Amino acid sequence: MTKALAVAVGDPAGIGPEVIAKSWERREAEGFSPFFAVGSTDAIEAVWKGPVRTIDDPSQAPAVFREALPVIRVDGSAVVPGQPDLEGARSSLDALELAVGLTRSGAASALVTGPVSKAQLYAVGFTHAGQTEFVAERCGIAAETAAMMLVGPTLRTVPVTVHLPLREVPEALTVELIVAKGRAAARGLQRQFGIAEPRIAVAGLNPHAGEDGAMGRDEIDIVIPAIERLREEGIDVTGPHPADTLFQERMRERYDAALCMYHDQALIPLKTLHFDAGVNMTLGLPIVRTAPDHGTAFEIAGKNMAHPGAMTAALRIAAEAAERIAQAA
Amino acid sequence: MTKALAVAVGDPAGIGPEVIAKSWERREAEGFSPFFAVGSTDAIEAVWKGPVRTIDDPSQAPAVFREALPVIRVDGSAVVPGQPDLEGARSSLDALELAVGLTRSGAASALVTGPVSKAQLYAVGFTHAGQTEFVAERCGIAAETAAMMLVGPTLRTVPVTVHLPLREVPEALTVELIVAKGRAAARGLQRQFGIAEPRIAVAGLNPHAGEDGAMGRDEIDIVIPAIERLREEGIDVTGPHPADTLFQERMRERYDAALCMYHDQALIPLKTLHFDAGVNMTLGLPIVRTAPDHGTAFEIAGKNMAHPGAMTAALRIAAEAAERIAQAA
Repeated sequence: MTKALAVAVGDPAGIGPEVIAKSWERREAEGFSPFFAVGSTDAIEAVWKGPVRTIDDPSQAPAVFREALPVIRVDGSAVVPGQPDLEGARSSLDALELAVGLTRSGAASALVTGPVSKAQLYAVGFTHAGQTEFVAERCGIAAETAAMMLVGPTLRTVPVTVHLPLREVPEALTVELIVAKGRAAARGLQRQFGIAEPRIAVAGLNPHAGEDGAMGRDEIDIVIPAIERLREEGIDVTGPHPADTLFQERMRERYDAALCMYHDQALIPLKTLHFDAGVNMTLGLPIVRTAPDHGTAFEIAGKNMAHPGAMTAALRIAAEAAERIAQAA
Repeated sequence: MTKALAVAVGDPAGIGPEVIAKSWERREAEGFSPFFAVGSTDAIEAVWKGPVRTIDDPSQAPAVFREALPVIRVDGSAVVPGQPDLEGARSSLDALELAVGLTRSGAASALVTGPVSKAQLYAVGFTHAGQTEFVAERCGIAAETAAMMLVGPTLRTVPVTVHLPLREVPEALTVELIVAKGRAAARGLQRQFGIAEPRIAVAGLNPHAGEDGAMGRDEIDIVIPAIERLREEGIDVTGPHPADTLFQERMRERYDAALCMYHDQALIPLKTLHFDAGVNMTLGLPIVRTAPDHGTAFEIAGKNMAHPGAMTAALRIAAEAAERIAQAA
């Protein structure tokens, strides 16, 4: 029988509950695989008048899904949309933990996570850099081995470094790190996207990819040796490419993912092109995990203004990846 | 009487001659103001079968323009498209110098420059960082006072730092430099684009614009003080904005130019969105100067493959700016 996806609602005062509910409304139009929310039912009912049904076990979700949004309930306090509090943060953490566990155990086919507030999570004792690191740890994977892939309709990017001040990026880049992320990108494209021979384009760090050393030696010292190592592993890798021209339409057709040296190099093109449809996928985990590439947006929570495009894309991509992996197994 | 624009052809073996000729072919469809090329007639005739007419003086250009591409001839050797040589580099420099002089003297209404090869120019003794710095010097302007604005149909960006290795960017950013470029951007938008109260959005340097210091202090120490200084001068400035979300459609509607901290932060969104229509405009000069935002593309020169979109945009924007300034004077 089809298993359902587990969707952690994220911060109950953010837009997570709303975009999940709006995604459920589109279940027929989008042809969605069944999913169930994990979190506070109050948070969903505070922003949505549609049918919610509490379930006890993921196996009940597929039957319920056609008529109501199935929810595995995590208790929380009363929720005021747009007004996060510590009890809500605790409930979002409980929901995340439960959703990860259900996916790891095989009760759910894949994990989708709604947006959380890191500031709120830190206030309740969360010690990971973000949900990705938490999920990796709960899966028994070192955070460095996992990689983040940003997925949009016409572009996928993988940042080698992520949440670092820009001035720390050059020192953080090593041949080993670039190789590890490039390998994760290639395997993720094979496993989760069914691309047998993935093409990876590697961006340079410096303007014009350093112009043969005239504008920085990082390409010569670090990026090119990493590209050579990846090629030795049989991966189809090109670069280092000047980052400014790498994301134009004709270039995007020539690769399946761009390996980027820092956060904004990966995120600027993705969000410029696909702001409402960006999905964050974690590669290198034993489970499929995606998330919409947006935050809690507390300022618009509860106003029926949130765009569900990224959440629907996260659901679709997770379902497709889970099915692909199940068929390959 | 209408004055014509001066268009330096750039490297005669590059795609400059071709995109200029193709732009002339579109003169009626685009409603172009008259322009004349400055450079080697051989270079144009080597790649184009249309009518070329040598003129002695810019004042002859408007009358000739309807029937033929007017050219003020600069001698060069025989030209083989795609095969740059030192004589060609010298001729591109002579053409640039002449075109700047004709524009400075008022004989031409504005300057448009075709792409040159810096490597070739350096080989013939050119000592400036690029054409922009050369033009600034010939106009008696310090290179730091000038600013580069990248102009596309839905986005304008101004990089505060340009051709620096990424690791040198944080140290190169100063309050004074950001203020100087922000001021140049605001004045350029007023003067050259006729925007009475320009809105400038300033990007942060770090991911998420530093998240209040959690991911880098450059925003707090440098960018925010610069924004406050610009506001004290009466300029409408917002930021620092996270760079990744700054260039999505709904954000682009809220500013007239984005002030960016480094080359790729300004160039990635511009070229991702507007690869074939990007124009480089130099602000802070006593003359109007634009250039298509692409290189010599030697590999496709002479193959009738070059897209004239950026050159036609450079011509249109220069003509509009020159007319605006003439009317304001």
